[in-house]
Amino acid sequence: MTQKKNIAIMGAGLVGSLLSLYLAKRGYTINLYERRPDMRINSIDGGRSINLALSDRGWRALRGIGIEEEVRKVAVPMYRRVMHDEKGNLTYQPYGKEGQAIYSVSRGGLNVALMNISEPNPNISYHFNRQVMDVNVRTSEVLLQNHTTHEQERIKPDLIFGADGAYSMVRGAMQKTELFDYEQKYLEYGYKELTIPPAEDGGWLLEKNALHIWPRGNYMMIALPNIDGSFTCTLFFPYEGTRSFATIKNDNDLLNFFVEVFPDAVPLMPDLAQEYFANPIGSLVTIKCFPWSYDGRLMLIGDACHAVVPFYGQGMNAGFEDITVLDQMLETFDGDWHSLFKTFERKRKPDADAIADLAVLNFEEMRDKVADPRFLLRKKIESKISEQYPDKWIPLYTMVTFTDLPYSYAMEAGMMQEKIMKKVMKHIESAEDYEKPEVQKLLQKQLVKKEKLKPYKG
Amino acid sequence: MTQKKNIAIMGAGLVGSLLSLYLAKRGYTINLYERRPDMRINSIDGGRSINLALSDRGWRALRGIGIEEEVRKVAVPMYRRVMHDEKGNLTYQPYGKEGQAIYSVSRGGLNVALMNISEPNPNISYHFNRQVMDVNVRTSEVLLQNHTTHEQERIKPDLIFGADGAYSMVRGAMQKTELFDYEQKYLEYGYKELTIPPAEDGGWLLEKNALHIWPRGNYMMIALPNIDGSFTCTLFFPYEGTRSFATIKNDNDLLNFFVEVFPDAVPLMPDLAQEYFANPIGSLVTIKCFPWSYDGRLMLIGDACHAVVPFYGQGMNAGFEDITVLDQMLETFDGDWHSLFKTFERKRKPDADAIADLAVLNFEEMRDKVADPRFLLRKKIESKISEQYPDKWIPLYTMVTFTDLPYSYAMEAGMMQEKIMKKVMKHIESAEDYEKPEVQKLLQKQLVKKEKLKPYKG
Repeated sequence: MTQKKNIAIMGAGLVGSLLSLYLAKRGYTINLYERRPDMRINSIDGGRSINLALSDRGWRALRGIGIEEEVRKVAVPMYRRVMHDEKGNLTYQPYGKEGQAIYSVSRGGLNVALMNISEPNPNISYHFNRQVMDVNVRTSEVLLQNHTTHEQERIKPDLIFGADGAYSMVRGAMQKTELFDYEQKYLEYGYKELTIPPAEDGGWLLEKNALHIWPRGNYMMIALPNIDGSFTCTLFFPYEGTRSFATIKNDNDLLNFFVEVFPDAVPLMPDLAQEYFANPIGSLVTIKCFPWSYDGRLMLIGDACHAVVPFYGQGMNAGFEDITVLDQMLETFDGDWHSLFKTFERKRKPDADAIADLAVLNFEEMRDKVADPRFLLRKKIESKISEQYPDKWIPLYTMVTFTDLPYSYAMEAGMMQEKIMKKVMKHIESAEDYEKPEVQKLLQKQLVKKEKLKPYKG
Repeated sequence: MTQKKNIAIMGAGLVGSLLSLYLAKRGYTINLYERRPDMRINSIDGGRSINLALSDRGWRALRGIGIEEEVRKVAVPMYRRVMHDEKGNLTYQPYGKEGQAIYSVSRGGLNVALMNISEPNPNISYHFNRQVMDVNVRTSEVLLQNHTTHEQERIKPDLIFGADGAYSMVRGAMQKTELFDYEQKYLEYGYKELTIPPAEDGGWLLEKNALHIWPRGNYMMIALPNIDGSFTCTLFFPYEGTRSFATIKNDNDLLNFFVEVFPDAVPLMPDLAQEYFANPIGSLVTIKCFPWSYDGRLMLIGDACHAVVPFYGQGMNAGFEDITVLDQMLETFDGDWHSLFKTFERKRKPDADAIADLAVLNFEEMRDKVADPRFLLRKKIESKISEQYPDKWIPLYTMVTFTDLPYSYAMEAGMMQEKIMKKVMKHIESAEDYEKPEVQKLLQKQLVKKEKLKPYKG
């Protein structure tokens, strides 16, 4: 087995571009093939969501290749959730401890940054306007449509990475092989992107360093800050039903609805109606599959093998963490791609499943529970527990967002915490009740039990 | 909306052929398109399992179109399971009450019978050697490859039924539409078909009117009788592991294994090695999807929308029951296909999901539990309960196999029975213990609770 194979990465999105840097560092020759034109020349957004939340797992992968600081310059920290009720009253929920934040970054901006960093590398070549038409997984031949020359091209790399996203053509080819497990599941909600523009002085019209939520039970709007002073808003809304995309048919329907349910946002959205009717409705899909690799010669990575809904802000972070894990395994398996791919997919699959399920669950939390004072009280109690027992209690959100504990471990620990909190909250009317002896006694007892779930040792 | 549309059924298998009869009866013009040649001329089996178990749901659909008696002539009743242990000792488990049986029928034979019955109908036309290449769900155009003329044909029927099985091309087209939920999941087991030929006098070498099982923990062999005196055996076996398809590489491996674990079967299988190495390994897939219809113009039916593993013997029966349910709805919705399809898929989906899950669970029962005397004792106790409380306790297997209660109801009731039986079996050492006062008291108490699950009212 030759050591330094010729590697093709299908898809030059966030995961493909970052992966190219990691592989090039180890001396491999990398060709990236991207369906869309070079977004640095021709900034077409392609309908994907505009900004993303970067958190610890993502930062770690950027740090691993030495580009953390460069990205941090264009990222806006968000320290807390700010909830807006129907009257415009605000409540708050910190994401973590003092100073802990998730970071709003522009998908396009980050992608451009990754391309600009990787393209000068002599081992990395980008090929734009190349659409994958067919992949023969048995021979590693890929048929590409060149949208510039309108001709078809054939390539036959030694190794193929499918980093071509939720609607992966590479995965489509895998799906035709025997014994390929596959699942795609849509939520009954779509999303629509809207904008709160910058203030006249270039500042932010809402609290800058926060993720804003308008939770409304079975739907919600959120807003994430951009570095230019604007916010990108996303309305998550049922397709059908009394209040849904189906029932908003004209400007009047739209404005009546927004004024009633998002009254404090409406004055900040001058282009609301124009944007609402011009922008497409995005769909929300979870994709699971297995295996992720074929015969040591082809491997899916990122959304291509585990697309998640956006409600935990972990889609990109999970894809970047794939790369961190893969890079660690390259140390052990360098050259033996067959074992590497098998080990990687077995290790990573439970974590991908866990974050997919957590993301669906978190939708309910964001659109509904955060509006409930009991829920916010519970979160306060949880952080008190975490302060008092730092070794035994890391809140679920913290595990997912601010640690590199495996998602599957976080999910299991989270379910155990859920059970304990149900018992604890029976004794809690206000934050002060935390000091009550029965609460303290209950916690002591429960946290001894909790030791059964051993801390993850890697 | 014109009443009598031109209907195309893609796939002339069991479900497609039977469906054509039901629709023709209502005056529709039916064209069936089948990828394979006419099996009446050219008997290619296509790798599908050779015989099937026909039970009440299937019979009901055949009866509904007046062809029950004709099929009964070629069906072999199986009244009980006969378990063969490693020494060739036999134990028995009746399927139902005295006289209740499931029926072994040949897939090919039944399909030919359905074709012979339907083809003379002036409203029904069969088109063989037509492979679906593409379906435009929005325009109802279908591109077919004619394997006789080697030319492509286009058809544009008013209505399309996708009865083209687990690997449905029609479903493939649906999968490219927005918001289509889809799941394919393989077991880590494959199957291999083998034969016990007829005795020299034309009789059966094993008890004729039974389904034979050689349960061996994590694998098993079964045998179903054919009308010609032979049995079709199926080995369900892991792909990988110490005892698996992977470890049987030559005649020697095979014979050593068979002599050790199926000693009483080996002398009855003169062509064992030849068949084993000539026959392909079949895979075992569960397929779920939703929706099943598109815009009132296209509908999936049978395996195309709910393929199940074979361990409950319900794949064909569920497909036939689709037709019974559809036919009932045609009474109500005749002409309004849009409402019919929406109502049908909503009603039928939970039942399809239930039988899919029950089929996976029943594999464990067949390959493992039926070898356990405690399990057989439990089954005896269950039939005593059912005798004593006929209105309150129908065993799960009976609900699925010998009634037309919805599969989803059977599954829920079965889970409740499972809980009760766990409590009951704590007091049971032998069948006589059923009379013990504590058992009788427990049952009375539990069966009052059980009334909470109301009998299904349709």
